Amino acid sequence: MLRQKLNPRAKSEINSGFGANSSNYGGRFLDSRGLPNVKKTGIGFFQRISWYHFLLQLSSGKFFLIVISFYLVVNMVFGSIFYLIGTQVFGAIETYSQVLDYWEAFFFSCQVFSVGGYGLVSPENMFVNSLCAIEAFLGLLSLAVVTGLLYGRFSRPKAYLKFSNNALLSPYHGNKAIMFRVAPIKNTSLTNAEVIVTLGIITEEDGKMVNKFYQLPLEYESVGSLSLNWTVVHPVTESSPFYVFSKEDYRNIKGEIIIVLKAFDDMFSNTVISRKSYSLDEVVVGAKFLPMYKRALGGERTILYLDKINSYEEV
Amino acid sequence: MLRQKLNPRAKSEINSGFGANSSNYGGRFLDSRGLPNVKKTGIGFFQRISWYHFLLQLSSGKFFLIVISFYLVVNMVFGSIFYLIGTQVFGAIETYSQVLDYWEAFFFSCQVFSVGGYGLVSPENMFVNSLCAIEAFLGLLSLAVVTGLLYGRFSRPKAYLKFSNNALLSPYHGNKAIMFRVAPIKNTSLTNAEVIVTLGIITEEDGKMVNKFYQLPLEYESVGSLSLNWTVVHPVTESSPFYVFSKEDYRNIKGEIIIVLKAFDDMFSNTVISRKSYSLDEVVVGAKFLPMYKRALGGERTILYLDKINSYEEV
Amino acid sequence: MLRQKLNPRAKSEINSGFGANSSNYGGRFLDSRGLPNVKKTGIGFFQRISWYHFLLQLSSGKFFLIVISFYLVVNMVFGSIFYLIGTQVFGAIETYSQVLDYWEAFFFSCQVFSVGGYGLVSPENMFVNSLCAIEAFLGLLSLAVVTGLLYGRFSRPKAYLKFSNNALLSPYHGNKAIMFRVAPIKNTSLTNAEVIVTLGIITEEDGKMVNKFYQLPLEYESVGSLSLNWTVVHPVTESSPFYVFSKEDYRNIKGEIIIVLKAFDDMFSNTVISRKSYSLDEVVVGAKFLPMYKRALGGERTILYLDKINSYEEV
Amino acid sequence: MLRQKLNPRAKSEINSGFGANSSNYGGRFLDSRGLPNVKKTGIGFFQRISWYHFLLQLSSGKFFLIVISFYLVVNMVFGSIFYLIGTQVFGAIETYSQVLDYWEAFFFSCQVFSVGGYGLVSPENMFVNSLCAIEAFLGLLSLAVVTGLLYGRFSRPKAYLKFSNNALLSPYHGNKAIMFRVAPIKNTSLTNAEVIVTLGIITEEDGKMVNKFYQLPLEYESVGSLSLNWTVVHPVTESSPFYVFSKEDYRNIKGEIIIVLKAFDDMFSNTVISRKSYSLDEVVVGAKFLPMYKRALGGERTILYLDKINSYEEV
Repeated sequence: MLRQKLNPRAKSEINSGFGANSSNYGGRFLDSRGLPNVKKTGIGFFQRISWYHFLLQLSSGKFFLIVISFYLVVNMVFGSIFYLIGTQVFGAIETYSQVLDYWEAFFFSCQVFSVGGYGLVSPENMFVNSLCAIEAFLGLLSLAVVTGLLYGRFSRPKAYLKFSNNALLSPYHGNKAIMFRVAPIKNTSLTNAEVIVTLGIITEEDGKMVNKFYQLPLEYESVGSLSLNWTVVHPVTESSPFYVFSKEDYRNIKGEIIIVLKAFDDMFSNTVISRKSYSLDEVVVGAKFLPMYKRALGGERTILYLDKINSYEEV
Repeated sequence: MLRQKLNPRAKSEINSGFGANSSNYGGRFLDSRGLPNVKKTGIGFFQRISWYHFLLQLSSGKFFLIVISFYLVVNMVFGSIFYLIGTQVFGAIETYSQVLDYWEAFFFSCQVFSVGGYGLVSPENMFVNSLCAIEAFLGLLSLAVVTGLLYGRFSRPKAYLKFSNNALLSPYHGNKAIMFRVAPIKNTSLTNAEVIVTLGIITEEDGKMVNKFYQLPLEYESVGSLSLNWTVVHPVTESSPFYVFSKEDYRNIKGEIIIVLKAFDDMFSNTVISRKSYSLDEVVVGAKFLPMYKRALGGERTILYLDKINSYEEV
Repeated sequence: MLRQKLNPRAKSEINSGFGANSSNYGGRFLDSRGLPNVKKTGIGFFQRISWYHFLLQLSSGKFFLIVISFYLVVNMVFGSIFYLIGTQVFGAIETYSQVLDYWEAFFFSCQVFSVGGYGLVSPENMFVNSLCAIEAFLGLLSLAVVTGLLYGRFSRPKAYLKFSNNALLSPYHGNKAIMFRVAPIKNTSLTNAEVIVTLGIITEEDGKMVNKFYQLPLEYESVGSLSLNWTVVHPVTESSPFYVFSKEDYRNIKGEIIIVLKAFDDMFSNTVISRKSYSLDEVVVGAKFLPMYKRALGGERTILYLDKINSYEEV
Repeated sequence: MLRQKLNPRAKSEINSGFGANSSNYGGRFLDSRGLPNVKKTGIGFFQRISWYHFLLQLSSGKFFLIVISFYLVVNMVFGSIFYLIGTQVFGAIETYSQVLDYWEAFFFSCQVFSVGGYGLVSPENMFVNSLCAIEAFLGLLSLAVVTGLLYGRFSRPKAYLKFSNNALLSPYHGNKAIMFRVAPIKNTSLTNAEVIVTLGIITEEDGKMVNKFYQLPLEYESVGSLSLNWTVVHPVTESSPFYVFSKEDYRNIKGEIIIVLKAFDDMFSNTVISRKSYSLDEVVVGAKFLPMYKRALGGERTILYLDKINSYEEV
């Protein structure tokens, strides 16, 4: 039944990597972040994680929380040891208060760890000497690691693109077309953008449910400069898998429009990638996008209204 | 009328990304720096800016001004707090002068921030201890950030090319050609240079003004080694959009010759990009470039005169 | 004789770089790590080694062992010199114990080296002053070097793939095919994977033994997203070099199936590479892989069982 | 006359970037390091130099000499100022010796500059305070710069290849061929090597001397793995520019065989490039290379003799 909804003339020969047997594959192909919706198991957690990938993907807030927590934990550990040894070994004033003594030990540790030196050569207590030398060494290594991580985070190629929340089924040259739009949101200069749009759909074939993938032909598959918004258009022609879809089919059939957009970031000479996935029920049937850029008043500039990226009117 | 000026045989099928409706697009396509002449609005300033892109693009002078200002501001803030707490907590000599006291606090802060240690474990004042620990931690993070930014600035792929100020319409094999030239100015070794030249022009079509983009065919679109100057030549043949242009048309018609030059920087194995845009009134009609390199006196070397890049004679 | 085992219709025109004369080439083409099985000689050790390649390839454990050893050795050297000069020059308390004096000197050196300052301006002993200045300078340089090495190690493109331990000769559409599988094991997002599979084999030609290399045609040579396992399939058709192989031939003939897999790491926008080599006696004749992914219980996710990558059943 | 020496059937259509008019171009096209033999002039020295390219290309010895010199010069400058102010301001012991006083000031500066802190808050002398704050700030910036430069030097893609000193004109399948060889010398893993060989020659055309460039067709233009030596072969067929060359022509005619070799460094996933240029009088006529690799004694390994790269015998 579902099989008949799909245009039999549309060609599906993509090796998508998501497998063909839909009874083995559960849920959406890509999750909301555009990452594969797959959970790995069978080997240990530490073999399954790349810390560098993890730390570079984190939001800035979480990243700094981890850095600060690391700083506090290290100093609490060393501070506790210094406290147990006795604060007088590093020349602190005796306070007759355990709490104050602990804080003195903690802040002494901070000073050693933060590459600040410690002005201490205590002949009596070799253990304290070793501890200080180890903590200072650890501090230097941590500085090196954090420097590397920060640079890794800064320099990670990022596309800074915004996609419209919905794809539309719009009138197009007397026919229909699936459209969505994308715009650059930051002070970057993206050129030679290329987009590949794939339809992933679960359908019946030879009596069993299979995943099928169709690459959707586009009006333009590339654009010279991604300066304004780019409306990507898939005309629903006779060779489109959507050719025989009714309005209800978009709501009822489970499928995803998967988008991979590559562009060249002029400033760093590297390629940036952005992914997006619209499920079929995110396709608005019978609507068209409203313009989102306009000549500035003086006439010498163009203004791109990023808040209008989701503006459409029904037709 | 303008429509007739453009050679109807010239093909325009480029999806430039600047849109087709010229009544929406204002001013030049690219600004003087080769960046799109578009202003973004509709989302907050902080969502619209990539600080890393901003800081890497800044001139060296402005970048160091920002770094120094940051150093001063941080130390003024911490210095003020130290001053308010009282300078005696970090062992300063009492001066009975508020100005001197403030400076003592300021310079104490400098010392803590610049990863210099502070030799202070004050049992009385936990607040000062915390402040010092925080400032030292901040100092380390700032060192890591500045290291990353400096390396990012150093290693950013840059082309170091100089384009001639004008394009020329020169005689060429009994016909005419649009020419401009470009030369490497620094101690880099650029190879496999490729250039794409596009004409962007505003013209009338079906009664409304549209932006049209034409890729201009070139005599050579690539060069093996960018060691001397490269004169890029677009012959004005029957398929050129300039075929029916008169001398006045270059002055009166609004259009831009947009150049994208990619080359391979041998030393870093990366691709560098340079952009340039000549408006049509920057085309000098009836002139030809004078040679800008010459065999050195001894005969064993070649000298490239970079100050002659704009030298031409009228013909 | 061996010559007849190889399908004469299979084409071998690859310039593999391993040379044609098999009597000069010894052992496997690639060693277990996928690196060429070649020993270089004839030039000095230091000309033959790239320290950066060496230090970036090391396991984390060995790398930190080297860093720690370097820290200890430097401080033992400087510590010894400080000890010989006499510990009193840097203000240490006299201990009347040679061992304690040495440790004082060692830990003083640690403090100077670990960018910690030394609070010493000794007018009497210029040699100590110089030593401290040199060691502090060395400490800074070491910090810079270790920062660079750590970042180099972090950011080195790595594929994090696991190949099945064996290749299988499985039934395939009424015929046979050589199959192996590969799966991503970490939290990376690999796309556009491409694989090239080459058979390297020693055979007789014109009376002498030669190395021959055949590129094996595959069912799919690329996959859009490497999210689940990918089973790479070489159908044994009439044009395959394996067409006339018997079961025993796989055990007796010396040959290697060499795999090069390239993929695009979305997160860093770079290309990662993985290599693997199966010798022919690692091909299991008459077996097929068992599925290694399954829809999760809730149905909204897919689970990839990485411990099942080597699971097959005989057929 | 020279014109007749060149095979008129050989095609020369390369836009080499060295210009066509040989009376303007002096000496070899590329110098001994493979860089263009061009001197730039006409703009200021500082506009003509990219310091980053300069510092990354320097030999390690010269680079560290510059770093050490910078360290010494900065400390001599600050040391001199501290000396002029008077050493007592930073708590030095009075020595009644100008030389010792200067050294005290110098080493105090070293300590401040090397991120070591200075333990000084002098209420009397604001100028010394500022000086220390500035020098400490400068020290931190220098650390950041040197870290970036060192990493830039480490991570710069380098090919580590050795070319034979001479190209040979050897017998080849009953005909002749120009051959040279190249071998990897370090612990890198280079794959997918590609070579482009160009002949640059000065010849007479239409009565004036011109530079002509011919791309030389090769037996193999690429090799899968650069593990052993690679002998690059240009067969001298009817379409080769060398077809009508006599033995003397190689000695008398001025020309260069320019080689560009690109390979993929597996370990860093980047492209490395190596250049080499043989002048025609470096072609040995009538010789062939001797083998430079051999099966190891045990038979399980292959040994590449890098000292034999220049070994050939006359034929």
